[in-house]
Amino acid sequence: MPDSSHDAEGGEQCFEDYVPGSVRTFGTILVKEEEIIGFAKRYDPQVFHIDPVAARETVYGGLVASGWHTAAMAMRLIAENYLSRTAGAGSPGVDELRWLKPVRPGDKLSVRVSILEARRSVSKPDRGVVRSFVEVLNQDMAVVMTWRGVNIVLCRD
Amino acid sequence: MPDSSHDAEGGEQCFEDYVPGSVRTFGTILVKEEEIIGFAKRYDPQVFHIDPVAARETVYGGLVASGWHTAAMAMRLIAENYLSRTAGAGSPGVDELRWLKPVRPGDKLSVRVSILEARRSVSKPDRGVVRSFVEVLNQDMAVVMTWRGVNIVLCRD
Repeated sequence: MPDSSHDAEGGEQCFEDYVPGSVRTFGTILVKEEEIIGFAKRYDPQVFHIDPVAARETVYGGLVASGWHTAAMAMRLIAENYLSRTAGAGSPGVDELRWLKPVRPGDKLSVRVSILEARRSVSKPDRGVVRSFVEVLNQDMAVVMTWRGVNIVLCRD
Repeated sequence: MPDSSHDAEGGEQCFEDYVPGSVRTFGTILVKEEEIIGFAKRYDPQVFHIDPVAARETVYGGLVASGWHTAAMAMRLIAENYLSRTAGAGSPGVDELRWLKPVRPGDKLSVRVSILEARRSVSKPDRGVVRSFVEVLNQDMAVVMTWRGVNIVLCRD
């Protein structure tokens, strides 16, 4: 459920709609045990991601989501609520990605995005670079993951 | 197909087996169109990840894998070939994650990991911190993605 701090909702926003200093929170997504296991069996088959019983004997004390799965679940919320359906042009990367707390079955994740900077490209003036700080929160509002992201967004004109 | 530059193979390696300066390459994993679309429909539903026809009109000129999907596929290779099944204790995060080239259906990805540093923990002497540079390569040996990773690994003794 997005709030409405953007001028243009519904994924039609352009570069001009990303305002430095603005903060948006959206979600939630429910973390299911079978999805943790399914994702990890394909992409991250470490014991604490795929075996709820054996996971109890690990440093995590139980099943936890792959950190890449947590990133992917957050990305779902970001794609639906923050990125532009029409003007999004991808991302060159992210910095300082941190997994701060375990994500467990039954957790409900939301995402808070703070826009740090929005700068029009000099070399390609039809687009701009938006820098954001992404925080993934659980149902207790604890921050479980963060990263600094960069997105390329096309301009309106 | 892992090479054999580690002393301990088969996922039984401990902190002591991660030697700074060593480089390993392993893979491959085939990138399938239906998996690109399936992953993205769940986690990253941007048009250039889910619609092969509409993707032609985007900056990518065709369907490309979600960057998080590329990370996840690389993680599969890392979990199977580089991490310890018995002594791995997770990761606090990664730095300087970069998506350098598009990953498309039919690509074959491999991973090259260079061990940058292996440092025994002072506060928890039963474990150490391994820092690595991860490069994801395609079938042309072009680097499509990189990151700097940190892994916690338990010591043998």
